[in-house]
Amino acid sequence: METISENACFGGVQGVYRHASAVLGCDMTFGLFLPAEARRHPVPVLWYLSGLTCTHENAMTKAGAQAHAAAHGLALVFPDTSPRGDGVADDDAFDLGQGAGFYVNATRDPWAKNYRMWDYITDELPRVLMAGFALEEDRQAITGHSMGGHGALSMAMQLPGRFASVSAFAPIANPTASDWGRKQFTAYLGADEGTWAAHDSSLLMLEHGFRGDLLIDQGASDQFLDLLRPEALAHAMAARRQSGTFRMQAGYDHSYFFVSSFIGEHIAFHAKALAK
Amino acid sequence: METISENACFGGVQGVYRHASAVLGCDMTFGLFLPAEARRHPVPVLWYLSGLTCTHENAMTKAGAQAHAAAHGLALVFPDTSPRGDGVADDDAFDLGQGAGFYVNATRDPWAKNYRMWDYITDELPRVLMAGFALEEDRQAITGHSMGGHGALSMAMQLPGRFASVSAFAPIANPTASDWGRKQFTAYLGADEGTWAAHDSSLLMLEHGFRGDLLIDQGASDQFLDLLRPEALAHAMAARRQSGTFRMQAGYDHSYFFVSSFIGEHIAFHAKALAK
Repeated sequence: METISENACFGGVQGVYRHASAVLGCDMTFGLFLPAEARRHPVPVLWYLSGLTCTHENAMTKAGAQAHAAAHGLALVFPDTSPRGDGVADDDAFDLGQGAGFYVNATRDPWAKNYRMWDYITDELPRVLMAGFALEEDRQAITGHSMGGHGALSMAMQLPGRFASVSAFAPIANPTASDWGRKQFTAYLGADEGTWAAHDSSLLMLEHGFRGDLLIDQGASDQFLDLLRPEALAHAMAARRQSGTFRMQAGYDHSYFFVSSFIGEHIAFHAKALAK
Repeated sequence: METISENACFGGVQGVYRHASAVLGCDMTFGLFLPAEARRHPVPVLWYLSGLTCTHENAMTKAGAQAHAAAHGLALVFPDTSPRGDGVADDDAFDLGQGAGFYVNATRDPWAKNYRMWDYITDELPRVLMAGFALEEDRQAITGHSMGGHGALSMAMQLPGRFASVSAFAPIANPTASDWGRKQFTAYLGADEGTWAAHDSSLLMLEHGFRGDLLIDQGASDQFLDLLRPEALAHAMAARRQSGTFRMQAGYDHSYFFVSSFIGEHIAFHAKALAK
């Protein structure tokens, strides 16, 4: 593993590291914030999955998350959103290929060779992190924005017991019924829609729910509401009788100004769940 | 004035606006955060001057300042760092020309035509802001990072009574004795070093000091310490018996991870001064 940079930040260290991913068949870069406490003992960790077009860097520099993670003694992981590099399949569209992994294991060419973001985030990267840094494997939580909110919710529901809590900012909540989902699932997973349900938070909510704490924030002035379909997730949560909170925030859009406005509350929420 | 964007942010609005600058002879873009209070009455304003290579956008997206400004009911102004555009003189170096205005009025060609950042920040932009937004002209404070810290300190000391308080993150503290200064002052102001002293915070401190509250933060692991010369400013502050605080922060570098780590304390500091 290669250290790209390490910056002092709120008494801890904001690092950026690169490693060879066997699962994805390329080098991958991730950000990791370690609070001061990590110098003395392992700390709990909050995963932050990013949205379309993002790299490891967007949330790391724009969400204002480190202040709150430092206050609560949490580590933050900022993975990239897809495999990367010249040898990795791509598409001219911003919402397919590099920067748009959608947190699935692709089964269709040309994507199947590298696009295994589900396994990367749920298996390989956790092993890299737990082996290399002072993190508590049994105290993990997950959040994400947009496509990353979809990833966070899908993983939290598919891997019961892994995450104490899950939250999301403006998640792609019902991708099997949206152009942010149908296009990508067709490309990555094929036309058989039966394989898609495992990656749709609203369907997963109806079928499995989540045993743990759950918080959703959605901006009421989000320019992508038709693609995100928050109403499907809100309906599913209520129909499931899922304990948790769904908040529609008046005036907020899809930007990091929205994320940063509420990241403090999300991190406090996860810290409380991780302290149980 | 043209509205480029307005995003809900911490209960207020983060706006980006463009206007035709008569002083600079080009269109200029600035960011303005207005807290919720500005919907009901004018609010005090904190200027944030940015560093080399920055635009209006860097601090606006990476400093995490809005959370604290909202908590204290302050507006934040994020100006650009130089005139811009195809018709504006430039240089291939990152530290001269566009992105590197150094907050002076250039008197030498080819810079004199557009590079009048002193007048823009101290005269034209304030008039634009006071005419267009709910801001209190008699409650202003100023801060900045690196080249912007130099600008903030220079303006605060040259314009007594304008700013209730001044702070800086890793300011270029002694440009007349640094390659971050001598090169640019030679280009913009000419070889006569007598004209440079009005733009050197350490010299201004010795000569004028600042009547108001003053706070300096400098990272001890800053990669540009030799160019910033914080020791000159610390010496001048002590020699002047200037009331204020100079903090050397162990481990921190020159990045926005440093700025964001302490921006909350700076904004609280300015809010307290503005409440006097």
